[in-house]
Amino acid sequence: MHVAIIGGTGDIGEGLALRLARDTTHTVIVGSRAETKAVGRADDYRDILGERGNDPSLLGMDNESAVEAGDVIVAAIPPEYIESTIESLAPVLTADKILVTPAVSMRRDSAGFHFDPPAAGSVSEAVEAVAPASVPVVGAFHNLAADALSNVDHELSADVLLTGDSPEAKAVVGYLVESIDGLRPLDAGPLANSAAVETVTPLLINLAIHNDGMHDLGVRFE
Amino acid sequence: MHVAIIGGTGDIGEGLALRLARDTTHTVIVGSRAETKAVGRADDYRDILGERGNDPSLLGMDNESAVEAGDVIVAAIPPEYIESTIESLAPVLTADKILVTPAVSMRRDSAGFHFDPPAAGSVSEAVEAVAPASVPVVGAFHNLAADALSNVDHELSADVLLTGDSPEAKAVVGYLVESIDGLRPLDAGPLANSAAVETVTPLLINLAIHNDGMHDLGVRFE
Repeated sequence: MHVAIIGGTGDIGEGLALRLARDTTHTVIVGSRAETKAVGRADDYRDILGERGNDPSLLGMDNESAVEAGDVIVAAIPPEYIESTIESLAPVLTADKILVTPAVSMRRDSAGFHFDPPAAGSVSEAVEAVAPASVPVVGAFHNLAADALSNVDHELSADVLLTGDSPEAKAVVGYLVESIDGLRPLDAGPLANSAAVETVTPLLINLAIHNDGMHDLGVRFE
Repeated sequence: MHVAIIGGTGDIGEGLALRLARDTTHTVIVGSRAETKAVGRADDYRDILGERGNDPSLLGMDNESAVEAGDVIVAAIPPEYIESTIESLAPVLTADKILVTPAVSMRRDSAGFHFDPPAAGSVSEAVEAVAPASVPVVGAFHNLAADALSNVDHELSADVLLTGDSPEAKAVVGYLVESIDGLRPLDAGPLANSAAVETVTPLLINLAIHNDGMHDLGVRFE
């Protein structure tokens, strides 16, 4: 399988690219607006994993080529750009692909961080509204700390909540999640349940702020 | 310390009464609108714990007397009644008491359960709005499964998120939480952060619906 990570050069995208490239046999495609940046970051990730004895399958491409080459497309893009980016990539988002959205919209005030949903109710639903109707959208990877994810020497132990209206697409993404060491996929139901999943992210940040010794938190359900 | 559990005869109140009575040396007061019902349930709880070799300090009182006798008041009341109940108890809610709110407001549609906040943003904030200004309000116990809590033979392993604007009151409630076997208190910040905490509850229900073998879920942060 080819996993394209649009916005694969920063924040959550870096960690997902590294973990998928290390822990799976899939080809990971790092996407960026500029091809040279994507190729450079793919080289960086290959070096990071190479130093640890891995020989990952990692490519760098501009976003459009990455989407064309990918079976699963992870839109690791800040929430304020995700809708326009998906709209611009719509011509290459064909019905055989799965679109994964990990973005969360937050605001901050004096009390802490808060979920700040778009009019659609959640970023996941906003993404679905602009994606081609034939492409299944799966919400995933919302509640992972970017720093913990990109530090490949850090051992993960976290649940990844999946939302989506296509059971098949959710199963494929769940299979990908399960193949990353330390992550467990859980089904949180249809895409309409995404708001609660996205809300956990500001909660994780607030807990890290207010509890000594807690940082880069994940969440587990048991 | 005296812990009064208003609405201590049903749902989350029963489990909290049983666990506090078993695991701590505090006096637990079961409150109900009808004194006879409260006394009867306190007897039931004493029997349940007595059969397991415990000799708990458990009393039953009408809600008003329970509040008067309590140092910490847990309002284990359905969200639709919590504001009117607190308003009616305001005369006995004196400044030396701490008011704890575990209630969550949810709605259900075809996709699943969803957080359904009151105009105040969360039930915790709605409770604070009607409580006497001198009484500190602490949000706690939102994310515990009632069935798991009231089955005292079930070993708990869950985090309890605390919100509140009084650090002292939050510390007292945290101390109570910590004294219940298997529960860990975590500070989620000011009361204004309660919406995210309350939102975890419908998420727990959705996860139990969609994942085989998962039920009566709790949440842990690590």
